[in-house]
Amino acid sequence: MYTLYTAAGSCGLASHIALAESGLPYTARLVDFAGNEQRSAAYLAINPKGRVPALATPRGVLTETVAILAFVAQSAPAAALAPLDDPFAFARMQAFNTWMASTVHVAYAHARRASRWADKPESHADMAAKAPANFADCMALVEGDYLAGPFVLDEGYSVADPYLYTIAGWMPKLGLDPAAYPCIAAHRALMQSRPAVQRAEAELQG
Amino acid sequence: MYTLYTAAGSCGLASHIALAESGLPYTARLVDFAGNEQRSAAYLAINPKGRVPALATPRGVLTETVAILAFVAQSAPAAALAPLDDPFAFARMQAFNTWMASTVHVAYAHARRASRWADKPESHADMAAKAPANFADCMALVEGDYLAGPFVLDEGYSVADPYLYTIAGWMPKLGLDPAAYPCIAAHRALMQSRPAVQRAEAELQG
Repeated sequence: MYTLYTAAGSCGLASHIALAESGLPYTARLVDFAGNEQRSAAYLAINPKGRVPALATPRGVLTETVAILAFVAQSAPAAALAPLDDPFAFARMQAFNTWMASTVHVAYAHARRASRWADKPESHADMAAKAPANFADCMALVEGDYLAGPFVLDEGYSVADPYLYTIAGWMPKLGLDPAAYPCIAAHRALMQSRPAVQRAEAELQG
Repeated sequence: MYTLYTAAGSCGLASHIALAESGLPYTARLVDFAGNEQRSAAYLAINPKGRVPALATPRGVLTETVAILAFVAQSAPAAALAPLDDPFAFARMQAFNTWMASTVHVAYAHARRASRWADKPESHADMAAKAPANFADCMALVEGDYLAGPFVLDEGYSVADPYLYTIAGWMPKLGLDPAAYPCIAAHRALMQSRPAVQRAEAELQG
């Protein structure tokens, strides 16, 4: 049994969908961000970084979406969630996922969590003002270069797809319209038709 | 043959050391950051993100340190650069590397590349002022939680070690003293004794 610590609206959705696709047994445990539970001693014992997602496994806790996604894929090979037998294609998937984590998610976070990186309200406003353009640049790169269509990888569906679905889903929060990106919009519709996506989103209503 | 596009002082050093450890044939190609070569049409055709590192392989170009490191390890299993046969241990390594990319490197970048995320000079100064404390928090987490000793993983040397070595090497640029972190300082000394580290650093002298 696996326990995924996550929160509605967070990047934990990507790991959640991957688990639902995998067939592995799991439960989703919602961390109370409104009550700052992620900074509680109990949660810091699970993840000293104070973030979601975290995946409790029989061998210990894993953190970081990029690592959890690959772990789920490797732990459920029959679900075919990654090109596990082709190191180059696997690396292409990992490169996409790492870019989502280190650049695209970070671009978004400057609109919502600017206080991580600066102290003055004027700086936070400046960062929030620039974030939509940075995020739009990333979405344009996805649209033009990184979405082979219908899925991220030429090889077919992989755990890169729930990650893109999760992060592209933040566009409206920055005032961006997914319809302006036809390939991404088609990807979103395709993802929403998958039972695993519907299950994960229902469990977040919990 | 592999070609690594990198630059002195960049995070490309991690992939460079991993290649030197691997025994795979490679050449290092230094990108001229002073001349803004990373934004040239020729380089953007290699990596549309305009960053280093990028690894040209016989099958195409790979980007993102986390992906390149795992690819090098998987491509040279005899070099034992990752726990390739244990998905949980592999995920622990990937989690460490992803955190380096998405949090620790990002914390550093706010001191040097704040213009990515805000437009006003006052904001840049505010971000640069906060960066050392954020980076120190990360180094404290490495020192207390993530450096099993002597290497990052309990399992022994892995590609997580050149990544930590690369990023921890930026401490002096933020006014931080590696000697304040005894485990990290010992890790640095151990790494500097490795021929692969010496080779990579020599090749960066160009």
